Amino acid sequence: MIEYRNLRVALLGAGSVGAQVVSLLLKHGDELAQRSGAGLELVGVAVRDIDAPRSAEIPKHLLTTDAEGLIVGADIVIELIGGLEPARSYILQALNSGADVITANKALLATHGPELFDAAEQVGAQLYYEAAVAAAIPIIRPLRDSLAGDRIRRIMGIVNGTTNFILDRMDTAGESLETALKTATELGYAEADPTADIEGYDAAQKAAILASLAFHTTVPIGKVYREGITSVTLEQVDAARKAGYVVKLLAIAERLVDKETGTEGVSARVYPALVPRTHPLATVHAAKNAVFIEAEAAGDLMFYGAGAGGIETASAVLGDLVSAARRHVIGGPGLAESTDANLPILPISSVTTRYQISLSVVDQPGVLAAVAMLFSTHGVSIETVEQTVAQPDPLTGEMAGMPGATLVIGTHEASESDLSATVLALGESSVVSSVTSVLRVEGSE
Amino acid sequence: MIEYRNLRVALLGAGSVGAQVVSLLLKHGDELAQRSGAGLELVGVAVRDIDAPRSAEIPKHLLTTDAEGLIVGADIVIELIGGLEPARSYILQALNSGADVITANKALLATHGPELFDAAEQVGAQLYYEAAVAAAIPIIRPLRDSLAGDRIRRIMGIVNGTTNFILDRMDTAGESLETALKTATELGYAEADPTADIEGYDAAQKAAILASLAFHTTVPIGKVYREGITSVTLEQVDAARKAGYVVKLLAIAERLVDKETGTEGVSARVYPALVPRTHPLATVHAAKNAVFIEAEAAGDLMFYGAGAGGIETASAVLGDLVSAARRHVIGGPGLAESTDANLPILPISSVTTRYQISLSVVDQPGVLAAVAMLFSTHGVSIETVEQTVAQPDPLTGEMAGMPGATLVIGTHEASESDLSATVLALGESSVVSSVTSVLRVEGSE
Repeated sequence: MIEYRNLRVALLGAGSVGAQVVSLLLKHGDELAQRSGAGLELVGVAVRDIDAPRSAEIPKHLLTTDAEGLIVGADIVIELIGGLEPARSYILQALNSGADVITANKALLATHGPELFDAAEQVGAQLYYEAAVAAAIPIIRPLRDSLAGDRIRRIMGIVNGTTNFILDRMDTAGESLETALKTATELGYAEADPTADIEGYDAAQKAAILASLAFHTTVPIGKVYREGITSVTLEQVDAARKAGYVVKLLAIAERLVDKETGTEGVSARVYPALVPRTHPLATVHAAKNAVFIEAEAAGDLMFYGAGAGGIETASAVLGDLVSAARRHVIGGPGLAESTDANLPILPISSVTTRYQISLSVVDQPGVLAAVAMLFSTHGVSIETVEQTVAQPDPLTGEMAGMPGATLVIGTHEASESDLSATVLALGESSVVSSVTSVLRVEGSE
Repeated sequence: MIEYRNLRVALLGAGSVGAQVVSLLLKHGDELAQRSGAGLELVGVAVRDIDAPRSAEIPKHLLTTDAEGLIVGADIVIELIGGLEPARSYILQALNSGADVITANKALLATHGPELFDAAEQVGAQLYYEAAVAAAIPIIRPLRDSLAGDRIRRIMGIVNGTTNFILDRMDTAGESLETALKTATELGYAEADPTADIEGYDAAQKAAILASLAFHTTVPIGKVYREGITSVTLEQVDAARKAGYVVKLLAIAERLVDKETGTEGVSARVYPALVPRTHPLATVHAAKNAVFIEAEAAGDLMFYGAGAGGIETASAVLGDLVSAARRHVIGGPGLAESTDANLPILPISSVTTRYQISLSVVDQPGVLAAVAMLFSTHGVSIETVEQTVAQPDPLTGEMAGMPGATLVIGTHEASESDLSATVLALGESSVVSSVTSVLRVEGSE
């Protein structure tokens, strides 16, 4: 029936993921070959420095500094170098030679995805990238295959472990952002330069990939709206908890209709948002990842697991390796990445969400009416109001801060532009001392 | 490049799932065809009674009572009749004619799976069944493909919505099993005859399918150990809550080594168990389903969503339809269901778990020592003991029940046989009035 083939596998990169791929492949190679229907021969591992220390031992004879030479003649190339170049050139070389490619490189996919998928389609090769989003959590295949018969409305993902760890520490241990970041660094959850994580760049790359896949539309990284967590305060996290919410950095991909223009399109965005404690995403603690999907027929789904880590990411890479090997065995051309829907990408101004806004206001009659009027003038409808008047300290009789009151206002769905105009007007109002917090609310109770 | 083909799709059965498949296919047919690279022509829907009422409208000209005639000439056959016959014969007819088959029929797969997979392999056809376990939750593809490069240790699934609804009502609303079942029936979560659900037969079929897939080994339904929820009491649920646990009906598929014989094999089993409230499975409420996977490299993963429902199950069926259509377009023989590992199936006596046992004991000195001795004699190691002495009612001064004390004993991992022997000895002991509860504990905190 099926002819048994020996497939030549080339690995580029031997960092924490690459070293684990080698280790697992050497340990379970026979098992994986059995499942693939093909022999999996690791022909070499390209590295920059042969003598660099590795997180798992790699047989010396496999190591080479000649990546381009290694790619020649390989049936399957696994790219785990990261970054844009030389990863992009190596992948193009591999695809153009007809090899299937497996990558975990989210930055590259979010930036040069279409070029790579086109190159693959030209020669009927396949580009696999299960490890690029949420590491070991199977999310690419469920989106590409299992939900291919459904219509996805929205994806909300906790796809960055570092920021989830930090926000979770702020929520559960009462640490400030600065302290929580220090804890994350000490425990190895944050890198020396945490910018890519805490400013939301990493999550934005994943949002671009998820949106492209879910909506069969190319979503370039430049069109992903992005806010990081650096301005999230402990006060916001505490207030959120008291109100039944938790602050999470969400990567959101949504199919929506711009209310002004009537255009149906895709929104991809990343920002910290309030999530109801009763929502499944609120149960995702520490550095764990989860992807919550709202589909027309399937309803709500959630995928949960480790979103980083060498061995966890290696699991996803090896899953792709078995898939690629099976395809080599059964033959047939590859499947082009579907972007047939080709929906327009909508800007953040097309998005409507609920908001929660905290204000310090002067404590005098008529303030609430004045504030409410400002909201209604700008077309933002108020759902809830909670007013707290500053009380003197019960022991000393002194006022803790400024005399005045705090207003926490929850809105119905409002557009970004209406909300921005409202916040601007609030800042200029004589009854408002300061706008202390503006956060979006995502996910129904 | 790829030739555009028109594929003839035959549907057998138009119950709640079938009617939704027709409805979604007629609504989104063009979109699905685009994603498949093939036209999807629904050539007919076989039903027993053309005039029976349907949950969604089906064009009259599609309906036929001649299932066998409909199968002839179909490229893809969707079987949604359920039950063993005539479903089995129809599927065999379809496969033997070279058609790919999609089914949601867990009973049939758990009973005649190997026969059907063999028939498919003979002719190079494919048998898809994503909808057979946990409806819309993608679980088959993640297990078969995404985790194909990993080694699964254990799967714990809440795979029956009816029993999860009942246990959740007992836990959150304090209803008795009987009342909760009545509520479930009224709300449409339980069938008129709930036996298949509450006795664990449905969960056992899913356990057989999950175990077969996860461990690349044929696990027949007859080898799945099964206990339903009918003996779970409100007292047990209340006591579990106080101890930080929740009672869940779990379908467990595990790779383990029998400690007596040293044999490595697969255990598939279904029973109500105590799950720590901090475990992700404890957050699965109402009729929702979830599958928790422990893998060697990927670590812990959870898949969560709707485990039943016409339209939710239809989503999974249509995902399979797109997969089947793509395979028709790209060509190539099908992939045989992998059972290469061929591990032995271990009996329940090979399983070791932790237990929680509640006892009524006489209130006299030395009772705890006597009970502890019974455990140690039978090789069961005690981890925790909680003793509650019955107190007189503070108002009346009367004793509420028998004079005596309650002991709740948590054990370390113990074998089924050692535990059974211990419980037998406890029942015969003069210091023990009664053994009021024996429950397994699954899932670490």
